[in-house]
Amino acid sequence: MGKQKLRIIPLGGLGEVGKNMLAVEYGSDILIIDAGVMFPENDMWGVDLVIPDFGYLLDKKERVRAIVLTHGHEDHIGALPYVLRQIPVPVYGTRLTIGLAKVKLREEGMADAVPLHEMALRQPFHIGAFEVECFRMNHSIPDDVGLAIRTPLGLLVHSGDFKFDHTPIEGKGADLARLAQLGGEGVLLLMADSTNAERPGFTPSERVVEQAFDQVFSRAKGRIIVATFASLISRVQQLVNCAERYGRRLAFAGRSMVDNVKIAQELGYLTIPEGLVVDLGVVKHMKPDQIVIIATGSQGEPTSALARMAAGTHKQVQIVPGDTVILSSHVIPGNEEMVGRTINRLFQRGAEVVYEAVAQVHVSGHASQEEQKLLLSLTKPKYFMPIHGELRHLHHHARTAIDLGMPPENVFVVENGYVIEVDEKGARVGERVPGGWVFVDGSGVGDIGPAVLRDREALSRDGFVVAVATVKRDGWTLQRPVELVTRGVVYLPEAQELVQRAAAAAGEAIGAGSPPKDEVEVRDRVRRALGRFFQEEVGRNPMIEVVVIGV
Amino acid sequence: MGKQKLRIIPLGGLGEVGKNMLAVEYGSDILIIDAGVMFPENDMWGVDLVIPDFGYLLDKKERVRAIVLTHGHEDHIGALPYVLRQIPVPVYGTRLTIGLAKVKLREEGMADAVPLHEMALRQPFHIGAFEVECFRMNHSIPDDVGLAIRTPLGLLVHSGDFKFDHTPIEGKGADLARLAQLGGEGVLLLMADSTNAERPGFTPSERVVEQAFDQVFSRAKGRIIVATFASLISRVQQLVNCAERYGRRLAFAGRSMVDNVKIAQELGYLTIPEGLVVDLGVVKHMKPDQIVIIATGSQGEPTSALARMAAGTHKQVQIVPGDTVILSSHVIPGNEEMVGRTINRLFQRGAEVVYEAVAQVHVSGHASQEEQKLLLSLTKPKYFMPIHGELRHLHHHARTAIDLGMPPENVFVVENGYVIEVDEKGARVGERVPGGWVFVDGSGVGDIGPAVLRDREALSRDGFVVAVATVKRDGWTLQRPVELVTRGVVYLPEAQELVQRAAAAAGEAIGAGSPPKDEVEVRDRVRRALGRFFQEEVGRNPMIEVVVIGV
Repeated sequence: MGKQKLRIIPLGGLGEVGKNMLAVEYGSDILIIDAGVMFPENDMWGVDLVIPDFGYLLDKKERVRAIVLTHGHEDHIGALPYVLRQIPVPVYGTRLTIGLAKVKLREEGMADAVPLHEMALRQPFHIGAFEVECFRMNHSIPDDVGLAIRTPLGLLVHSGDFKFDHTPIEGKGADLARLAQLGGEGVLLLMADSTNAERPGFTPSERVVEQAFDQVFSRAKGRIIVATFASLISRVQQLVNCAERYGRRLAFAGRSMVDNVKIAQELGYLTIPEGLVVDLGVVKHMKPDQIVIIATGSQGEPTSALARMAAGTHKQVQIVPGDTVILSSHVIPGNEEMVGRTINRLFQRGAEVVYEAVAQVHVSGHASQEEQKLLLSLTKPKYFMPIHGELRHLHHHARTAIDLGMPPENVFVVENGYVIEVDEKGARVGERVPGGWVFVDGSGVGDIGPAVLRDREALSRDGFVVAVATVKRDGWTLQRPVELVTRGVVYLPEAQELVQRAAAAAGEAIGAGSPPKDEVEVRDRVRRALGRFFQEEVGRNPMIEVVVIGV
Repeated sequence: MGKQKLRIIPLGGLGEVGKNMLAVEYGSDILIIDAGVMFPENDMWGVDLVIPDFGYLLDKKERVRAIVLTHGHEDHIGALPYVLRQIPVPVYGTRLTIGLAKVKLREEGMADAVPLHEMALRQPFHIGAFEVECFRMNHSIPDDVGLAIRTPLGLLVHSGDFKFDHTPIEGKGADLARLAQLGGEGVLLLMADSTNAERPGFTPSERVVEQAFDQVFSRAKGRIIVATFASLISRVQQLVNCAERYGRRLAFAGRSMVDNVKIAQELGYLTIPEGLVVDLGVVKHMKPDQIVIIATGSQGEPTSALARMAAGTHKQVQIVPGDTVILSSHVIPGNEEMVGRTINRLFQRGAEVVYEAVAQVHVSGHASQEEQKLLLSLTKPKYFMPIHGELRHLHHHARTAIDLGMPPENVFVVENGYVIEVDEKGARVGERVPGGWVFVDGSGVGDIGPAVLRDREALSRDGFVVAVATVKRDGWTLQRPVELVTRGVVYLPEAQELVQRAAAAAGEAIGAGSPPKDEVEVRDRVRRALGRFFQEEVGRNPMIEVVVIGV
């Protein structure tokens, strides 16, 4: 029997390719790498969450052998409940990653749904036709790994989300030695993180943030409040160290911060000296220069701890002059306005505010161009597929690889759903299968799409008018005045008279000229009259619906 | 008679203080500086435009003597029609600024509404109690000026939007000599542009963009398409120069680009060699390496020329592999997603795309910290009010002034509507008057506010359901099945059955238990039943309205 084909398919990512899910297929075996969620963009009206479109796998469920996780961020593990409900397979990950996955599945009442296996660094294990091995990489969460996947057709290397940090806060630097060994073994295809492919140079070490913290801590005369990502355990560790060094006690604000700190401590990824942490409730009884608060809300999320402090609605913490607030984070595109407003409000309350634009209180967790070159040089892949980035990032990453001497035809810049097909002759871009994303809204998964979003968009612009016309079936004459219900069009307390005139205009339209011949015509006349009315009177185009009650 | 008080009031700005309008008041005279519009933020649902709230001036109309414009950008002249309709006073500005104001007023049928006066550099003129003089500053539009306003209580200096560019593309550098003279004369109060107060160093000269253009032009083998702001006349001039130097012809795409180029040429602010420009329609018949297209759309605006090219819907220009697209602009906060998507689409069509993140194809038009220091050092003001920026920028600008030795109590960080009061004893922050913004939606000015926006926001999240319940007045029993109209909640073609069950649930609620005692109770029962139904079935909270038809 000749060898089967190997197929690699980036499946999930909102604009970003293969960011949240990727499938590797050989013969009757399918392996999934990561199962993460995405957060809706500003024009995904009312959508709560976006998950990868794994429809391609649904009729191949029994061939899926496992999900292997590269790290514990939401955009890599958050879709596990959705995927496992349909495709219940074992999950593999490093210690912290499995710990976080467990919490997530427990929240969904799926604690025992599938076996969760811890995998150890450099310890290969078999999943169907594949031999999988993980190796240490650096990122903005501990226990982040890349994957080496040995297949009958050759060795695949998947970088996970990565940077090379020679002086990380926790653990060790990335496993450069193993990457070099894999390069020596011969890498068929490298798939690597393209997030920062536009950035020249090296991404600074997580360590440099400590210098900026030191500056703030050494000057601050009042409280210090730091907002950062709850999963950025190493950042929390740095703040723990700073608090201890400067003789301050530490409190946590925000549920996800408290939860993540708890699990990281339990699993040994965060070391907090005994007695350092105090309850947020006692902070107000302490001297301001003896306290550090670590909070959620670095993206200005309206319900987060920091946003509530900035708005003056946080129960336990009021911002007062003398407070210093650090936003230790990068603003995720789309959140600029919310973050900007939060900063302004903090200034308004008299706080000193320190953020990425004015001090290096954050560094990226993703490799810049020189690190991307280093990974390519170490692994010397025959083929290269940039992943984990938008198309523009993939293009820049591809150019980097070509600049290093890779033949352009061996570099695959593809979108989600494109299949990279490998056989004994080589690799190429094959067919396209479904791959992309599915909206989650409330309890509905995939039940709303562009049509509903278009309606919501129109409603958000100009609101709606619903007219109720009660007409005699015999002759279609109006039986009682047209009733209008409207929201989001005009300010009603002041526009009552306008709405009354609109209702009158609708009624007149039914009676004007020859009588309507049927219900459809009644509806059309009312709709047209109202459309014209609101356009002429206020220059707006509300969504108009008409209910005809035939009596 | 003792001297009157001098009052300075920043009036308009969406988050930014005094950005779009500022009033100076002495005795019976009021002078307005600028009358610009703001563009709505992402959560200002359906709002078309935002204008300054000049309600404070409405009962003082007869005391307003003039509007003086600092430059011709929309955020400084765009509200003229709205202001002049209520307060018809003469308008002063430099040549190009008045030219652009004229176009704006003509479009609104207000060509002859008020006298428009050109003002010349360094030529003082009187407006009521004030002597006004303008002096050259640099910005991203020609003919930008700062203002010196002599009042009976002292000299005010207003920077306008500014940077110091020693090698500008058109005209000369800022009038440092006049600023120094004003400093010698003694400046009571300086008001200065804070936009880049977070940025250390100097803002690069507009000239540096030409080097980046040269690199692109020397390498590009196909067409070059450049998107930039239509008002960035000096950028257009640089592209004209490049096109000539590299033997390419030039075409313009986008109405505002065509219009602005026309007026800038007429008034002598843009020099285009004869025969260089071709019609956009003939571009497709020319060799790709002989053409440059300058287009609107640098912010990814969906209806702009560039966005239509990226989406494949532009009638005259299709993007093909080999095209090079330059986005010569800075992304305005809030537009990141749209711009990112445009760039991805251009890459998808095979274009090479060059933008701010990967090459210096744009420089800011606003002063950085070292320029702000230079302005403070030249003018040596007694009092300083940072303007033109969000609160966080004002704070940084204030800190710069304090670092230069100004007493903190002489630096006023205020929000719109705060009055800076000056008398012979000095200056201080006084009362607060209305000042901020007013929404323009369709033809309505100020008729919608937070309540309507909240409705639109709710509609954008979960849509609406309107129920029509026809009941007998006698006993309030249902006369016919409840009818439902819904949009934006569920995808109707697939959810018909769900909507029918919802209508049935509403009907049952009316009939359940003891009969409703009145119309209000009928309405409440239906609303509650539907709220519960949609929450349970799809986890959504649509806006619910009930029409009760009593028969």
